[in-house]
Amino acid sequence: NTLEYLITQNLDYIITTGGLGPTKDDKTKDAFNDFLLSIKTFKSTKENIFPKKNTNTNTKLHVGNIKYVENKLGTADGIWFNHLGTNIIALPGVPDEMKMMMRKSLLPNFKNKVKKSKFTRLIKTIGISESKIEKVILKNCNLADMVNIGYYPSYYGVRVSLSSHNKKNIDDMVNLLRKILNDNIYSIKNEKLEEVVVRIALKRNFTFSFAESCTGGLMSNRITNVSGSSKVFRGSIVSYSNQSKTDFLNVDVSLLKSLGAVSEKTAITMAKNAALSFRTDYAVSITGIAGPAGGTPEKPVGLVYIALVSKNKSIVHKYNFGKTREINKIKASQQALNLLRIMMKNG
Amino acid sequence: NTLEYLITQNLDYIITTGGLGPTKDDKTKDAFNDFLLSIKTFKSTKENIFPKKNTNTNTKLHVGNIKYVENKLGTADGIWFNHLGTNIIALPGVPDEMKMMMRKSLLPNFKNKVKKSKFTRLIKTIGISESKIEKVILKNCNLADMVNIGYYPSYYGVRVSLSSHNKKNIDDMVNLLRKILNDNIYSIKNEKLEEVVVRIALKRNFTFSFAESCTGGLMSNRITNVSGSSKVFRGSIVSYSNQSKTDFLNVDVSLLKSLGAVSEKTAITMAKNAALSFRTDYAVSITGIAGPAGGTPEKPVGLVYIALVSKNKSIVHKYNFGKTREINKIKASQQALNLLRIMMKNG
Repeated sequence: NTLEYLITQNLDYIITTGGLGPTKDDKTKDAFNDFLLSIKTFKSTKENIFPKKNTNTNTKLHVGNIKYVENKLGTADGIWFNHLGTNIIALPGVPDEMKMMMRKSLLPNFKNKVKKSKFTRLIKTIGISESKIEKVILKNCNLADMVNIGYYPSYYGVRVSLSSHNKKNIDDMVNLLRKILNDNIYSIKNEKLEEVVVRIALKRNFTFSFAESCTGGLMSNRITNVSGSSKVFRGSIVSYSNQSKTDFLNVDVSLLKSLGAVSEKTAITMAKNAALSFRTDYAVSITGIAGPAGGTPEKPVGLVYIALVSKNKSIVHKYNFGKTREINKIKASQQALNLLRIMMKNG
Repeated sequence: NTLEYLITQNLDYIITTGGLGPTKDDKTKDAFNDFLLSIKTFKSTKENIFPKKNTNTNTKLHVGNIKYVENKLGTADGIWFNHLGTNIIALPGVPDEMKMMMRKSLLPNFKNKVKKSKFTRLIKTIGISESKIEKVILKNCNLADMVNIGYYPSYYGVRVSLSSHNKKNIDDMVNLLRKILNDNIYSIKNEKLEEVVVRIALKRNFTFSFAESCTGGLMSNRITNVSGSSKVFRGSIVSYSNQSKTDFLNVDVSLLKSLGAVSEKTAITMAKNAALSFRTDYAVSITGIAGPAGGTPEKPVGLVYIALVSKNKSIVHKYNFGKTREINKIKASQQALNLLRIMMKNG
């Protein structure tokens, strides 16, 4: 019914997602079969509209004007046909599969149909609120009226999206923002922070390692999601017990007893010994109270120390990232990676 | 316009998400202001409909019949008012904030209005395809017609959702599925696999540790997302270089030269030494070629060895998880955690 209604609206594209799988609860295949029968373009059965993967292409193509949208990641291909000038496209719903097919097969086609280009940029910031960024932009920039600006806060920082039909306006604004916001910006190319860190390390030929307590491997996991990271990242000690801090990172039992695992001195010792053991140019350590349990009045849940060491420098910072375990881990890893980025950039 | 249209449709609830933030691009506040003026329920301004956080509650409540929906995680509260019998609710769009407000403030309210209860269960499986699960269910189960079944595949396995107005049908079906699918089911309570692993270890008083190469800390990160994990998880060596495999996990340089870092013997050595160094009852190691680069004809991208050791047992498995780095990591960590779950359950 929805397809029949939409087809009357003179649309260029109708895209459905989901319901193309092999099990009974996947209803989209039945709906398309009914729709194709109802518009009488051609006689069809569900089996020849949505053939099994790896069916011979000649068999596939005999059904009307249906083209197939290749799905390299999963089992269900998409279909694409034209009816009364409208492109009707059915894609699977598994996010990675849908996204890849969108990127590879659909977006290039849409791009050709766009009459007036729009230029967009995504600026990624950390350590500054959306209100402050807006204030800074409105104060310093007479371009603000000529560029559409969107602010998207998350635990990773605030993304600022810029769009305009005029490319120069965007470029000018990006340059101005870099000058004003400086180290608060970690990417002007929609990169993840871990991608920026790996890129800088590769470029400057630096190696680094981690010692992670409360982040429990999150920072290493993020870095090793980046292709090429094995050239610069040597490894991490996830020291989730006091004993492992002593055994692998040489943190004195007496230090753990007197100042505790969550302390400035423990953080520095962890980072120094990580750099030493992994033989890296830089090392970062994180120790804190992830929560929700384990806090005290002196050391509340969310308290985190981050230490960074290089050959000639060692610094430690204290933070409080709040009470929710996973958010705490994300914020701590984001802050630590940003400190590493800045240290390597200047180092 | 949309609110004005929807209000004519005799709906119980209209919920909007997003656009309540402090910056200019947050348009929902303006839209609600216009709508409230247009329905002439009361005179309002944007500022007193959406007051700043921590504004005195008395000031908040003087605007018509607006109630505020508390946002414990972010800066923008939601609003809730009734117009012509329809509940109109505006929530912020930040996913965690929206979800928490939905759970705490909205769902309990919806629940009271439901006339006929529907019972649902989410069964989480691993190592079996959606088609196979459906085949097994249809073959073994005459309840299949009385229960709505949905199949949701992902890189973590296939989730099977069951729903019915009859609770006994659901319970019978769950019991049957547990018998037939056995170890392919890791949760019948919508738990994550890492939650199940921590739960079993806590219950049986087991400790465990990891040695992660190609998963790069993902497995540790997942385990440390679970509250209480510090009681059973001692830590992990993320050995992302050959040297760290030798230094921290006692993998012989000669072994690395002859068989390579991605081999059965390396995997076993890594797991054994992790158990030894962290002094844990169980240890799991993963070594593989994450890709996209680094593959050879003998050791293609996606090749992964997973080893598990306990006091009286050591096993190693070989897999190929495909060519995409992050998917490869997810599948390897999921498989390894599942093997650990089974070993601890029987151990």
